[in-house]
Amino acid sequence: MKTGENLSRRDFLKAVGIGVAGIALGASGVLAAPEVRSFIDDNAKSKNKINFYGPHQPGITTKYPKHVYFVSLNCEVKSKSELKELFQSWTEDSVRLMNGEVMPNSYNTLLPPNDTGETAGLDVSHLTLTFGVGPSLFEKAELGLQSRKPPELKDLPHFPRDQLDPKYVGGDICIQACADDPQVAFHAVRNLIRNARGKVTMRWAQAGFNSYPVRNGKKETPRNLFAFKDGTGNPNVDSPEEMNRFVWVQPFESADWLTGGTYMVVRRIQMFLETWDRTSLTEQEATIGRHRDSGAPLGKTGEFEDLELDRKDERGNPIIPVDSHVYLAKQTKDRILRRSFSYSDGINPETGAFDAGLLFISFQKNPQQFINIQNSLGRLDKLNEYITHRGSALFACFPGVQKGSYLGAALFG
Amino acid sequence: MKTGENLSRRDFLKAVGIGVAGIALGASGVLAAPEVRSFIDDNAKSKNKINFYGPHQPGITTKYPKHVYFVSLNCEVKSKSELKELFQSWTEDSVRLMNGEVMPNSYNTLLPPNDTGETAGLDVSHLTLTFGVGPSLFEKAELGLQSRKPPELKDLPHFPRDQLDPKYVGGDICIQACADDPQVAFHAVRNLIRNARGKVTMRWAQAGFNSYPVRNGKKETPRNLFAFKDGTGNPNVDSPEEMNRFVWVQPFESADWLTGGTYMVVRRIQMFLETWDRTSLTEQEATIGRHRDSGAPLGKTGEFEDLELDRKDERGNPIIPVDSHVYLAKQTKDRILRRSFSYSDGINPETGAFDAGLLFISFQKNPQQFINIQNSLGRLDKLNEYITHRGSALFACFPGVQKGSYLGAALFG
Repeated sequence: MKTGENLSRRDFLKAVGIGVAGIALGASGVLAAPEVRSFIDDNAKSKNKINFYGPHQPGITTKYPKHVYFVSLNCEVKSKSELKELFQSWTEDSVRLMNGEVMPNSYNTLLPPNDTGETAGLDVSHLTLTFGVGPSLFEKAELGLQSRKPPELKDLPHFPRDQLDPKYVGGDICIQACADDPQVAFHAVRNLIRNARGKVTMRWAQAGFNSYPVRNGKKETPRNLFAFKDGTGNPNVDSPEEMNRFVWVQPFESADWLTGGTYMVVRRIQMFLETWDRTSLTEQEATIGRHRDSGAPLGKTGEFEDLELDRKDERGNPIIPVDSHVYLAKQTKDRILRRSFSYSDGINPETGAFDAGLLFISFQKNPQQFINIQNSLGRLDKLNEYITHRGSALFACFPGVQKGSYLGAALFG
Repeated sequence: MKTGENLSRRDFLKAVGIGVAGIALGASGVLAAPEVRSFIDDNAKSKNKINFYGPHQPGITTKYPKHVYFVSLNCEVKSKSELKELFQSWTEDSVRLMNGEVMPNSYNTLLPPNDTGETAGLDVSHLTLTFGVGPSLFEKAELGLQSRKPPELKDLPHFPRDQLDPKYVGGDICIQACADDPQVAFHAVRNLIRNARGKVTMRWAQAGFNSYPVRNGKKETPRNLFAFKDGTGNPNVDSPEEMNRFVWVQPFESADWLTGGTYMVVRRIQMFLETWDRTSLTEQEATIGRHRDSGAPLGKTGEFEDLELDRKDERGNPIIPVDSHVYLAKQTKDRILRRSFSYSDGINPETGAFDAGLLFISFQKNPQQFINIQNSLGRLDKLNEYITHRGSALFACFPGVQKGSYLGAALFG
């Protein structure tokens, strides 16, 4: 059920007996008495827990994600049963992590600690864990999953202005950890990967953040690093009808094992902040098609007012420019659930500019929703002057897990 | 007083008259009426403000820094008077930023916004800004500051296990922004650098975070990514006596202009998390010389108990190993104020390992305090197996600013 290391740790604990004084060979080669400690932590008492179990995975419609640690993995196991065991093991780990439990809370000091420990005493901080599988996983003949690959799960097409860097592309498996605290999100991914040693290797990862303006005690749409609100046009996560229409795969809409799941698009979008910052507000707003401060469509005052793309000024010109980001994005009827994060990764030593931008993440029941929008933006989008897509990946996110079951049961079972 | 761009912006505003309707050439080349908007923000009402003015700069003894955005800059101005103007301008900007004011809060839409805007609606989040100058600044003949260079302000020596990467080394000027919110810290640095366009260029930067366990309503020492508490041995920032002894430069102790200031050591320390995580707890604790969970010296139970390095076990062996990090660090009587942050910058594509570690920052009245400790650690420190120093810089941080004065007045005045 667990990695080799954990197995031997358990065997070892069984062999020496927890709490029984004895003699064992320490890592330093010195004979020492194994000491078993119990580490009681307050995390588990926290009220800031998200339930792992449910019809859908957490971290998709969960509101107000503040920090993310996203990782894309290569699958190294050689059989479907091993892969199944990995996801079974991760299911157990995820429940513990999202409950804020140190995993597990007693340990033998002559072995590596079961938990890397950097969240000891920290709140569980609304941790969510979300798992997905990429197209390349289904191409590994040894796993025997070729016939289970949904036709929609394939690499995203090359879009006109893409300048992808291979170090931010693809992946067999992904984990998205979100929390109010970056250390809690990172800790979760680190421990999940550690517990899968030899079964997965890391391909790429990206940390990111979101900050929510609060007005009258209510959290508002966060702003990206261009200072524009990001996510205004999202479908309503509180509406099961809208979620079923745009996000959750319905029966017969994709592979059977994905019913109740969703597709996750991840794009690492570099933003040229210095260029943007030299641009007039008028031009910035014409680029986006919205007012910066209010988030309202151009010529309007409320963030959530209808775009009314066909509005014209006195001279008959469109009020929302036809090459603006929002105009082009709305040329299709497709809607996606954007759940993006900003990143700031220091300076690009070659250009001397900020290495900063957006970890764009969107969820949709069919990748075509994203592809249609991206194709509509195409070469025309005025925003292209200020951004470049450097990373890209697509994953199918399993449906939620019922107690007693495990992640991907319908695929591996 | 301000950059060329701001000068022309102000001139422009003067020319068109704020709020006066008129005609001007927009960025898109279309004649348009300049629109002047007032952007009222709630930030300025926040209680979470740190005072910029005082005998010492903020961000040095300010407690519980959560997020940092640190940037090292190249100085591009060619005269002392321009440098003075830069720091005068940054003084004004810093006061506004730390007060949570959008800078300034009215603007003409045909010009780039005065403020990049991504903190609109966000709390000021205990923002602190701390400025320092590096040895290389004093070697620029055109600035005429050669004679003002304190003998202590020179590049740190090469330490035995250093593997410095040029892209994380040195700098003429540094800015440390700390806040409870990463977007607030990043915004401050971005706007300070934007307002200094043409006067500075960016050399390297690093974002980082700290998470504070809270027990009985009190914040505790944060843990680094090795899960060990970081900063337990710090002098007491609430004790002016200890701060004057270890941190604040006293009269005649260094250059006159640095009295009331301090030296800032910055080291980007890569941590080999995967190796650490394969190490037994006994070995981890022997490496540090403290217990992981409690932070107590080996063989003790309280985090703040005396180390008593000469304690021996029944067989006469030192309880705290003589090659442990804490044992070696305490071989000198030197003390420093550690104020470090963790970072997690994704995956190193060459090794497939986490690019994660510690942005080590320490403040001391003389860099020799740090050098002595680092030399004592030398080749012996057991921790060397698990870490590598990749970045390094030293800065002299000005004393605090009195209202009406400006950063570095004693150096540039």
